[in-house]
Amino acid sequence: MRARLSTRSSAPVRQSSVRAHNLALVLHTVANNADRPSRAAVAATTGLTRATVSALVDDLIAGGLLTEVGPAPRTGAGRPAVGLVLGDTPAALGLEINVDYLAACVVDLTGAVRQRFVERADQRPADPGQALTALGGLAARARAGAEADGLILAGAALAVPGLVTEDGLVRVAPNLGWQDVDAPALLRGAPALADLPIAVDNEANLAALGELRVTGGDPTFLYVSGEVGIGAGLVLGGELYRGVRGWSGEIGHLTVFPDGRLCRCGARGCLEQYAGQEALADDEQLAASALGIALAAVVNLLDVPVIVLGGAYAPVFERLRDGIGTELRQRVLTAGLAPAELRPAALGADAAMRGAADAIIRGVRDDPADWLRRAG
Amino acid sequence: MRARLSTRSSAPVRQSSVRAHNLALVLHTVANNADRPSRAAVAATTGLTRATVSALVDDLIAGGLLTEVGPAPRTGAGRPAVGLVLGDTPAALGLEINVDYLAACVVDLTGAVRQRFVERADQRPADPGQALTALGGLAARARAGAEADGLILAGAALAVPGLVTEDGLVRVAPNLGWQDVDAPALLRGAPALADLPIAVDNEANLAALGELRVTGGDPTFLYVSGEVGIGAGLVLGGELYRGVRGWSGEIGHLTVFPDGRLCRCGARGCLEQYAGQEALADDEQLAASALGIALAAVVNLLDVPVIVLGGAYAPVFERLRDGIGTELRQRVLTAGLAPAELRPAALGADAAMRGAADAIIRGVRDDPADWLRRAG
Repeated sequence: MRARLSTRSSAPVRQSSVRAHNLALVLHTVANNADRPSRAAVAATTGLTRATVSALVDDLIAGGLLTEVGPAPRTGAGRPAVGLVLGDTPAALGLEINVDYLAACVVDLTGAVRQRFVERADQRPADPGQALTALGGLAARARAGAEADGLILAGAALAVPGLVTEDGLVRVAPNLGWQDVDAPALLRGAPALADLPIAVDNEANLAALGELRVTGGDPTFLYVSGEVGIGAGLVLGGELYRGVRGWSGEIGHLTVFPDGRLCRCGARGCLEQYAGQEALADDEQLAASALGIALAAVVNLLDVPVIVLGGAYAPVFERLRDGIGTELRQRVLTAGLAPAELRPAALGADAAMRGAADAIIRGVRDDPADWLRRAG
Repeated sequence: MRARLSTRSSAPVRQSSVRAHNLALVLHTVANNADRPSRAAVAATTGLTRATVSALVDDLIAGGLLTEVGPAPRTGAGRPAVGLVLGDTPAALGLEINVDYLAACVVDLTGAVRQRFVERADQRPADPGQALTALGGLAARARAGAEADGLILAGAALAVPGLVTEDGLVRVAPNLGWQDVDAPALLRGAPALADLPIAVDNEANLAALGELRVTGGDPTFLYVSGEVGIGAGLVLGGELYRGVRGWSGEIGHLTVFPDGRLCRCGARGCLEQYAGQEALADDEQLAASALGIALAAVVNLLDVPVIVLGGAYAPVFERLRDGIGTELRQRVLTAGLAPAELRPAALGADAAMRGAADAIIRGVRDDPADWLRRAG
């Protein structure tokens, strides 16, 4: 998804971009209509002519992106037309490496999980090459299962607990002990991944994208991933905000007590030292209060209306809620006008790898013309 | 600018939106080319046909948005063509109310300041109606001067040190003592403003927009406005980020010392208590250190590469720089990879009202078709 192009441009509107725009429009129209719309219904919704819609639908069906099925049952009069639904291909491979597990899944075009493998093992003793070779093995099993189902893969994406550059280079993953690891190159060494586009991203960013896809309702929220470290993924207006170098979301290193505990990063009083997985096990109320102070900063700064707590926070959410809420009410200037909502993550431990696969799927759904060219 | 529509849409591409897109494209092409491009040069840059460009240019000239002038001097052979430059109309009225002054300016389509009035007076004793009536008087003088120059106004925008809703309602402006003030309605009572679209926005947001226009180089930065209170305007990828309710940027209420000084907002340890105008006068080094802690949170969270210090910070910038920098180096996780840049604001005290006028101008430049319809 790092290579995904923006659809905005100041170039003049030409025929090829009109076709690409309209292909995406038709695909989204079908995806957002659970009633299996006919070609005529798609034409009516989009304002395109029926002939144009039919040509676009034929291309999308040929590429596997749409399928024609019987219409939804109905009681009205008239001959029911054949309806359109999303196809299930292309699908995407979501991968994750974290401190104590490896994971792989395949998600199809509709967002359904078709394969899922998790292997628990401490990754800290392994060097990056060993760890990613093991992950390549898991990917091979997921891919074989998907292809046995007739799915075609559009790409793979890896979630990593660290800072990732635009090229997928892992600059630092402190809790894995990684520094400057060329993760795409190492993954391409695995036979199951050699022929796929590979993206790499921060796990909290990808978990936030996964949450966005599953819940649908909140286009702007902060996803906080409580692991050994604490990361955050910021979704603004339905888009992940990465920061200029892709290094946003380092909420674990927000200062909560300027003269407090020494952090692995060298600073004093970082949130991670009060609300990371180990501190959380020691003292849940201190963790809640420290989280509240840091989250108040986020809400004051960004006017984010929803905060989603994932990772280690999700199972203890109810016990953290009051302590966090107390700080938010005291410290957020607009708390009296419209308080921020707190909720646990919907996807649990699979959030990051689901988000990784979803990022590939979103790329296809937003620019089906590109996929049709590649597949054609 | 609150009413400005996004140019992105999932609607099919139709003729009218193609024309609007191409009008903006031609206008931007001329604006970004200091060499007075000919119609042929605009056609070559945009990829549009010469006939299309000529028709669009004619419309823009009729609306005052473009002017035909002699070409830039050159030494090559061939007959020099007539060149295009931005017209100066429509222009925009920028207004500001702050704790100790009122201000009004007129900025033309090229961004040049054509009128400027500042009236120093403590606004706290005045009720909102009185204050805005006085501001209406200043606006009348600015408008009269602009119209004597042949300028036509497209609208007015007011900068306020407070939380503003989408409709321009000032929910709270704590340092003015305002609560729930319908600023657009009060301004429309002034004869000079009765016939203009009126927008209202937070002063730090508008100052950030002004800074964006003037410097041009940094599409992502945080603008911090140090006044009696402290506000921030966040520009992400060339766009002001407002937050879901328009209440982003309340950096003055970030907690820097959780058990510290009591703030007017009721919380303890807010940045405003350590780095607001009064605290700054008491202890510049404490102000710098507190600012550094808060700004480190912003950089960790948002990966913002540039921080601009405005208002009361600009004149003492050199004395604050080291204290802020020390905290950033210690507390920002990626400080060793790529440190954030600190710099003083370019526009000084006029930033907010210039930004207010610029917001109107940007609206016209981004959607000239809308202005041509209104003016036509």
